[in-house]
Amino acid sequence: MKRPIAAALGFTLLIATYSPAALADTHWTEARIPGTSDQALVLGRDLDGDGDPDEITIRLEVIELTEEVYPGEFVKFWVFAPEGKGMTPVARVPSLTIRVEQGDRVRIILSNTHYFPHTIHLHGTIHPNAMDGVPGITQAAVMPGESFEYKFVAKNPGTFFYHCHVQPDVHVLMGLGGMLIIEPNRPNNIFTHLVPGAGRMPDLAKATVEEGYGREYSLVYLDIDSRLNRIPAAYKDPREIEKRMHRDYDSTQRKANIFLLNGRSFPFTLRDTPIEVKSGERVKLRILNAGARPMKLHTHGHHPTLTHLDGYPVPAGMRVTRDVFDIGAAQRIDLELRPGDDDVYASGPGVWIMHDHTEHTVTNKGISPGGDITAIVYEGFMGDDGLPKTAVSLERYFDPEYYLGHVPVFNPKIFNTTRDAYEYGWPEDEPVGGKFTYPVRENK
Amino acid sequence: MKRPIAAALGFTLLIATYSPAALADTHWTEARIPGTSDQALVLGRDLDGDGDPDEITIRLEVIELTEEVYPGEFVKFWVFAPEGKGMTPVARVPSLTIRVEQGDRVRIILSNTHYFPHTIHLHGTIHPNAMDGVPGITQAAVMPGESFEYKFVAKNPGTFFYHCHVQPDVHVLMGLGGMLIIEPNRPNNIFTHLVPGAGRMPDLAKATVEEGYGREYSLVYLDIDSRLNRIPAAYKDPREIEKRMHRDYDSTQRKANIFLLNGRSFPFTLRDTPIEVKSGERVKLRILNAGARPMKLHTHGHHPTLTHLDGYPVPAGMRVTRDVFDIGAAQRIDLELRPGDDDVYASGPGVWIMHDHTEHTVTNKGISPGGDITAIVYEGFMGDDGLPKTAVSLERYFDPEYYLGHVPVFNPKIFNTTRDAYEYGWPEDEPVGGKFTYPVRENK
Amino acid sequence: MKRPIAAALGFTLLIATYSPAALADTHWTEARIPGTSDQALVLGRDLDGDGDPDEITIRLEVIELTEEVYPGEFVKFWVFAPEGKGMTPVARVPSLTIRVEQGDRVRIILSNTHYFPHTIHLHGTIHPNAMDGVPGITQAAVMPGESFEYKFVAKNPGTFFYHCHVQPDVHVLMGLGGMLIIEPNRPNNIFTHLVPGAGRMPDLAKATVEEGYGREYSLVYLDIDSRLNRIPAAYKDPREIEKRMHRDYDSTQRKANIFLLNGRSFPFTLRDTPIEVKSGERVKLRILNAGARPMKLHTHGHHPTLTHLDGYPVPAGMRVTRDVFDIGAAQRIDLELRPGDDDVYASGPGVWIMHDHTEHTVTNKGISPGGDITAIVYEGFMGDDGLPKTAVSLERYFDPEYYLGHVPVFNPKIFNTTRDAYEYGWPEDEPVGGKFTYPVRENK
Repeated sequence: MKRPIAAALGFTLLIATYSPAALADTHWTEARIPGTSDQALVLGRDLDGDGDPDEITIRLEVIELTEEVYPGEFVKFWVFAPEGKGMTPVARVPSLTIRVEQGDRVRIILSNTHYFPHTIHLHGTIHPNAMDGVPGITQAAVMPGESFEYKFVAKNPGTFFYHCHVQPDVHVLMGLGGMLIIEPNRPNNIFTHLVPGAGRMPDLAKATVEEGYGREYSLVYLDIDSRLNRIPAAYKDPREIEKRMHRDYDSTQRKANIFLLNGRSFPFTLRDTPIEVKSGERVKLRILNAGARPMKLHTHGHHPTLTHLDGYPVPAGMRVTRDVFDIGAAQRIDLELRPGDDDVYASGPGVWIMHDHTEHTVTNKGISPGGDITAIVYEGFMGDDGLPKTAVSLERYFDPEYYLGHVPVFNPKIFNTTRDAYEYGWPEDEPVGGKFTYPVRENK
Repeated sequence: MKRPIAAALGFTLLIATYSPAALADTHWTEARIPGTSDQALVLGRDLDGDGDPDEITIRLEVIELTEEVYPGEFVKFWVFAPEGKGMTPVARVPSLTIRVEQGDRVRIILSNTHYFPHTIHLHGTIHPNAMDGVPGITQAAVMPGESFEYKFVAKNPGTFFYHCHVQPDVHVLMGLGGMLIIEPNRPNNIFTHLVPGAGRMPDLAKATVEEGYGREYSLVYLDIDSRLNRIPAAYKDPREIEKRMHRDYDSTQRKANIFLLNGRSFPFTLRDTPIEVKSGERVKLRILNAGARPMKLHTHGHHPTLTHLDGYPVPAGMRVTRDVFDIGAAQRIDLELRPGDDDVYASGPGVWIMHDHTEHTVTNKGISPGGDITAIVYEGFMGDDGLPKTAVSLERYFDPEYYLGHVPVFNPKIFNTTRDAYEYGWPEDEPVGGKFTYPVRENK
Repeated sequence: MKRPIAAALGFTLLIATYSPAALADTHWTEARIPGTSDQALVLGRDLDGDGDPDEITIRLEVIELTEEVYPGEFVKFWVFAPEGKGMTPVARVPSLTIRVEQGDRVRIILSNTHYFPHTIHLHGTIHPNAMDGVPGITQAAVMPGESFEYKFVAKNPGTFFYHCHVQPDVHVLMGLGGMLIIEPNRPNNIFTHLVPGAGRMPDLAKATVEEGYGREYSLVYLDIDSRLNRIPAAYKDPREIEKRMHRDYDSTQRKANIFLLNGRSFPFTLRDTPIEVKSGERVKLRILNAGARPMKLHTHGHHPTLTHLDGYPVPAGMRVTRDVFDIGAAQRIDLELRPGDDDVYASGPGVWIMHDHTEHTVTNKGISPGGDITAIVYEGFMGDDGLPKTAVSLERYFDPEYYLGHVPVFNPKIFNTTRDAYEYGWPEDEPVGGKFTYPVRENK
């Protein structure tokens, strides 16, 4: 829609200026996410008659769920999920990516179906103070069984972050946060509004196409401390969970031990959230650090350009190109990735991993490789098994034993032994299978 | 004062060029901070005759004091305080904010009234090497009972950081650091030189007014580890304190657990150091991270613009506007805040919190809400009780029991129980007051 | 060399266009690092006839060594070292700084002389996917006794980082990383290719001279956890080391306790890796954070200008001047340091320390001063003893007892006691030597 000339006139008057034709056109089609209610997303009138819906109503509930984030690691999360239908909730971690258009009248109705109070803070968007979602300060927290309607006109386009603001040191890091995108105003701007689990955007908004992008990804990073997420699994009564999580658990002493991209750690990231690209195409990466640690995101073989900071465009002359980007807690950066072989921005086709370069974050509880590693996978490099084509089979990383530390990380043959015999003998005796012979350099 | 044309000529010759009238005018008035000596601040001659003092002498002492930083939490600090008068020291945490003018001949006389050696490092200012305050390297540490005179001509305007450089991993984090501002040269530049405890500047320097600002705040952030600050409280003999703090305490394993803005944690921040603004006014925020962790400062509802990095102006074309700013240890940023409802830089009137977005830093020892949360409070939104007007009473956060973890963070009613009965029954039996009924969504 | 006009033509055709004269000129002289084999560095043909070698072959091996990083602290490291000759390896921590020229055909042959698998990732350079060094993804890890040849044409000039990508949370932090510099194309570009231990560059490349620099430093920062480095010292069998390092050691809970610049901590940094400068000269600092923590690098008395991020030039108009620079894990920044007394970029001659301002990183296992502190030492300020001229003798910091915490950090005289009597008496009795008398301010 076009930005209203006189925003100050408010809703009512504005409607009066729209043509009846536009008002009548309220039957937008967006594929319903299986299992969600028909009220989870309601697309309303085209207020300015430019061919797309401008009244967006989204109903969210709060779901506790368990996901296997890497082989053998089942983690309890809380997420904002589109309102479900029937008994089985429809939920994925991270909380779904929400997209609206600049100028839209957005209503996000939070139905608190959880046992703790929650709110939604619309981090980075322009919105009335009463919609700021800070319990105590701007509203009372939404109690279990209650609901609250967050209403705002989407004003500033960009990449934002919606998250719970109740006990945020715990709730955000339990998964109650997701990406919120406000797309710039364009006529006939038809795109999918709800994208569960983030990842590749199913379609591009008009402005993204105009800017020359061929693909777009929503990348939500989260670092978690499994000692926290274990609490709701270990205790049944909400009062006890409250005490263990909010009073006994000391978040200031927290050290995260699981590092997620779109709810997965390596190797599941390669399967569930790869960055598929093709040479010559420009790819928009919207990146949100929903966790609590300063990220240093490295793209192997590629030097993306920073186009937006916290949703605000970086002026053209000051767009930095580098290979390790800082993304602090709650910050968002948009990157322009230019796959190809121009030898400046990209090194050519293949499978190039991408990860936080803080070394211990590419582990699963300290066992490498793991964490938020995913890969930039060029056309033709995705295998039939749904994994990128790699030099060596990654099968061993799909064995839960590996991340339990039950399996040698190196092939036991190099130590003249076998996996079975691996831990026998030492330190007292010779290793079973013979002593390791140190390699000797042969000078020519 | 005007910058001398030939700085190389030095002091003596320079004076000779000033008019006798100017030299005579040495009786500047600045309200003496109650309890300080009349030597704590001495404003000397107007050397260039432009109507303001250019010889600034500040006498500091080192004071150990205890402050209640949030309800029930009494913390021992060391601060640089203006020289006191009589037996009772005049001290506040953080160390006072000092303001001088570019071109001023500044003398900071450190009288070490403490039991440990100290120095002052003038971080970021241009000064002679001998004035750099690094014990061992540029001077001997100032021993208890001794004093040292730091003399320099203020050359580069901006926001700086003065701090002790003796055992800085302990001394700075005990509170021995404050903001040092060098105001640009202007005639008749009359402003308050010493601002205890930072916070709102009582007046603006000429250049700040010229730049269009209506208000200015000095925001000093500090993260502390209560295990360190407890040491001087727990041991009496300085030798024992030396051993416990400087040899036994391993700062590399430190995890801060209290997060301060201008010496306070939430909720005291709202009372003692709110950011009061009015629509249409431009507000200058000078921010210093005097702690040891990388801060990610988030302004709810507002997108400030970064104007200075470490006191140096960012060229106009590259001033970033965003909503989460990085401020590393010892870094300073100046932000331009534009309260109002322009829908770009500000979302409109109300009470908007501002805090480090590293989730665990908005807690008091892991109990949320706490830490460095303060609020941007618009005109008309400050209550008669000295607290911002909020949706819900904040009274419970003023109860020390809350931060001791003795009080449920949520209203016990939602669990069908009472505070008294809260911890009885579980985990073996049903909770007193009945079982919690999980909310059920009602699809329409 | 000049960049080939048609890079796409590939190697073979390109050679054909070069003059026979150039092809004949393959006898380049570069002083062999004592103890290395004559194959450690092989300078090949001048393919474009511009007077410098364009075929660079470097043979690296993996060496385990022990170095004293500060007085009394002996640490086990693993490094990439130039191929040695004879039984005694030639190794230093950090892994050597490698310099090649843009357009060079580079071959780095890794001979794995170690007991664990390793690879080399050429972080930030443009190179074929197969040369990316990620085990599993782009190649099989190089097993003990095996070798692998990394071949690439150096395309993008700048400051890069080569490091092992096998179990990087452990291997990189054990020392398997170094700086890789690609110098811009220039005729007759003769410079030293291998610089063990980084530090001052023995010569400047042509482009660096053209840019007006008089000196250049390679500064490699690394933070280590001595609990990790202790493992290969404590266990003999590689299988046991594998288990302790890669499965038992949980890097996610790591807190570094030793902070190195070019393999040394203070006070050895002052002796082994000072930044020697002279007024009026411009000095290029290439800085690599090879560790895992976000650095905040502070230059006392100086305000350098940021010229490159991760090897890519920052456009002239957006070069920031400040005094605390952010350098995240794996990031590189190039700084322009302008020693002198211009009162903007520099404060004048002397000894100015430079260090990460995260307070606890300027300690050695929590005892201050230590860590990565070095100094910017002006001409005339280096003493005959190989240490900068300082206000006070630094002798005490060369006593291992100091960093073991066996020595009071302050002169015992200030407490009316002696070092011998220091720990007797308290806390029960009066300290030997009498009670400490608190200093009393004398108001004038």
